[in-house]
Amino acid sequence: MPFVRIDLPAGKSDQHRRTIGDVVYDALLTVGVPKDDRFQVITEHTLEGLILDPTYLGIERSADALFIQITLNEGRTDDQKRSLYQSIADGLHDRLKMRREDISINLVEVLKANWSYGNGEAQYVSAAADTQGTSNVR
Amino acid sequence: MPFVRIDLPAGKSDQHRRTIGDVVYDALLTVGVPKDDRFQVITEHTLEGLILDPTYLGIERSADALFIQITLNEGRTDDQKRSLYQSIADGLHDRLKMRREDISINLVEVLKANWSYGNGEAQYVSAAADTQGTSNVR
Amino acid sequence: MPFVRIDLPAGKSDQHRRTIGDVVYDALLTVGVPKDDRFQVITEHTLEGLILDPTYLGIERSADALFIQITLNEGRTDDQKRSLYQSIADGLHDRLKMRREDISINLVEVLKANWSYGNGEAQYVSAAADTQGTSNVR
Repeated sequence: MPFVRIDLPAGKSDQHRRTIGDVVYDALLTVGVPKDDRFQVITEHTLEGLILDPTYLGIERSADALFIQITLNEGRTDDQKRSLYQSIADGLHDRLKMRREDISINLVEVLKANWSYGNGEAQYVSAAADTQGTSNVR
Repeated sequence: MPFVRIDLPAGKSDQHRRTIGDVVYDALLTVGVPKDDRFQVITEHTLEGLILDPTYLGIERSADALFIQITLNEGRTDDQKRSLYQSIADGLHDRLKMRREDISINLVEVLKANWSYGNGEAQYVSAAADTQGTSNVR
Repeated sequence: MPFVRIDLPAGKSDQHRRTIGDVVYDALLTVGVPKDDRFQVITEHTLEGLILDPTYLGIERSADALFIQITLNEGRTDDQKRSLYQSIADGLHDRLKMRREDISINLVEVLKANWSYGNGEAQYVSAAADTQGTSNVR
């Protein structure tokens, strides 16, 4: 269910970008995302197109800093979110030698009915379900 | 009120991409979106930049698979969302011969106060309305 | 905490785009966003890739029209949102001679736990906080 947008500086190799996607996918698995649920857009930007403040909150960001925005179902606890952030930062550090300071992440939470994975169907809600828009949490 | 981001593989014609936008717009009209409320960003990606799992949920996606993310006002019922997905998938199939399996969609819901359509105004809430951030559903 | 995506027509100067980012940042400061909290992606589009209806709601948009999508913490009042829209429109008009009609804005609101600004941490929630996903408003 997550949809991931990764915005990073131009000039890295295809393999580097692919590995970033791998790390985010692997980290999402650890907070309950199903296997193979991988939908990602990875976009390169020039220096002028990606502005990530170099010192906000006292964290020093380099020219390699990137931003990861993840849309996913609502309902994760704060601890699960913290665990997700840590897994992403650790994975990018371990596999790509990225600085953990360079990794900013934002989550956008939505309802289960807000996804169609093909065929024009809403796979996460049953057809027999409510017709009143009751929220389907998680 | 909807704002639509369409991310698709590079190499299609301008007309092809335009028609995708037309189909999404037409489908939104069927769930109560006003005429001419069309705000869309259509972005092409290389193979490496658009990763859409080829089999998730048992749905076979081809190299033509795309992702449509729609930000819109909250309040649609699950049935309306289902109808929207079906209209988009049917429209892309009928008008562009796209495979319905190739069409993934995600909705992000927001409040009516979260839009400005020009002139620095919040056109969907009246100036006399609350000042307490009360949600204005739909 | 805000993450800003600015989608605009191609062909403007680097300085022009930078100033758009400056204006949005300055406007966010006026509604309580902390100093240096600037995280922005600015993307150029061809005519075919950025479709902004030229007359929706009776507002005439030119070929210079752009769209600004801001993800930020929930909790601003309608008046604060209105003030933000006005500041952005006024700033772009004053500093870049942009037409106020050409400026469309959308806000996506999230919880405080939905941000990591580096180091794999969730800087806006304390580690001692709840583990039940209780919303941390603002």
